[in-house]
Amino acid sequence: MSNPTAAILIIGNEILSGRTQDTNVNFLAKRLAARGIELAEVRVVPDVPHRIITAVVQLRASYSMLFTTGGIGPTHDDITSECIAAAFGVPWEIHEETFAAMEAYMGKEHFNAARQRMATMPRGAKPINNKISMAPGFTIGNVHVMAGVPKIMQAMYDALEPTLPTGTPITMRAVYGMGILEGAIAAGLSAIQDRFADVDLGSYPFRRDGAGGVAIVAKGTDPKLLESAIAEVSQLLAAQGFDPIQGEPE
Amino acid sequence: MSNPTAAILIIGNEILSGRTQDTNVNFLAKRLAARGIELAEVRVVPDVPHRIITAVVQLRASYSMLFTTGGIGPTHDDITSECIAAAFGVPWEIHEETFAAMEAYMGKEHFNAARQRMATMPRGAKPINNKISMAPGFTIGNVHVMAGVPKIMQAMYDALEPTLPTGTPITMRAVYGMGILEGAIAAGLSAIQDRFADVDLGSYPFRRDGAGGVAIVAKGTDPKLLESAIAEVSQLLAAQGFDPIQGEPE
Repeated sequence: MSNPTAAILIIGNEILSGRTQDTNVNFLAKRLAARGIELAEVRVVPDVPHRIITAVVQLRASYSMLFTTGGIGPTHDDITSECIAAAFGVPWEIHEETFAAMEAYMGKEHFNAARQRMATMPRGAKPINNKISMAPGFTIGNVHVMAGVPKIMQAMYDALEPTLPTGTPITMRAVYGMGILEGAIAAGLSAIQDRFADVDLGSYPFRRDGAGGVAIVAKGTDPKLLESAIAEVSQLLAAQGFDPIQGEPE
Repeated sequence: MSNPTAAILIIGNEILSGRTQDTNVNFLAKRLAARGIELAEVRVVPDVPHRIITAVVQLRASYSMLFTTGGIGPTHDDITSECIAAAFGVPWEIHEETFAAMEAYMGKEHFNAARQRMATMPRGAKPINNKISMAPGFTIGNVHVMAGVPKIMQAMYDALEPTLPTGTPITMRAVYGMGILEGAIAAGLSAIQDRFADVDLGSYPFRRDGAGGVAIVAKGTDPKLLESAIAEVSQLLAAQGFDPIQGEPE
């Protein structure tokens, strides 16, 4: 696949402490796949400047684009914006347009120093507008800086999406075999994978309501190839005496 | 804090594709915190050998220990074990004890080549026994290789936990202010953080049932300091006319 690639950097002590269950990765993974952008890496780092800066420098150099989530509010632990400036080696300065808009919205008397920090961005940043929050997301170079709160992050991604490059949408087809054990079909699956170089064939054991089985998922950019690969997997399951159930991968 | 540190490496195309919502990080984060081990980084990489090997080499050098999840089954996409061998520069070879146990359990006629692969481990690996699965988790050096299926991973962690180093348990205390905006308390919070160098004070806006507020979470290894910091935050909220609600962080 020659699709654009992406990484996600989650800046979040609350994920590392176990306080919060991340859901932003799953949301972005699905939306990026539908746009033909390959999510190639995710990292979670704490609210520590050198950790954030190093990760931004590495990830934005390694992939077509980087999305960050978290750390853009007005409190002392919101340090993403100045870390992005450091990663780009540009000044961190008042973004005049955002400053004026926030001041007008809040009123001069409530627009205190902490809130003015939210209007401070790396030089060259372009704000990501969203309809539900004043949270100051922005794009600079190939880095998209978004909120950590899922609803605000999602609104920002909605605003951002039309500006992103597109690739061939990445889709999936799946077949389920109840009661099957991976070890019984591994050789056959491997042979099918060898015949379909452009399909990414994954095998995932699952348990549900006390019963177990295996989901075989074909992922790729050519729906016809996915159908063909899944048809072969279904034959493999049937030949082993199992009833293959085709369906959407979930 | 001079607690031991840990990283998690998730080897999982299914997380990056959006097919699966990861829950292993949250489980491990809580259990590690309770044992006094600081979870310092998480990475998700695809089932690609050089990506796995590079991440293992980097993460195990950077932290006291590394946990990997995923990729230890018998199918062609299960490549974690050989990648760990490559990362350690040791041969990948039959683990005699595991081989014998699996052969006895499955019977010689079902113990095919794919299943024999599951009994193949990096030289020096020590199997992680668990009660619910034959999945071949193992420990080598400071790397703990676990299954991706949450129930199996959890059983492996249960078996592994007594062998891990311990630190001072990391706990949290929280106070919630409904209707509060972060920008109104940011300066006060920052001053409290400055007075409590050994407490990690985080501020997390939330929305629930249409109402919004902020959760202030104090994290650290000294419960008395956490109480003191949260008491000061409660006073700050009260001084702003808000009703502070103390509770367990969730």
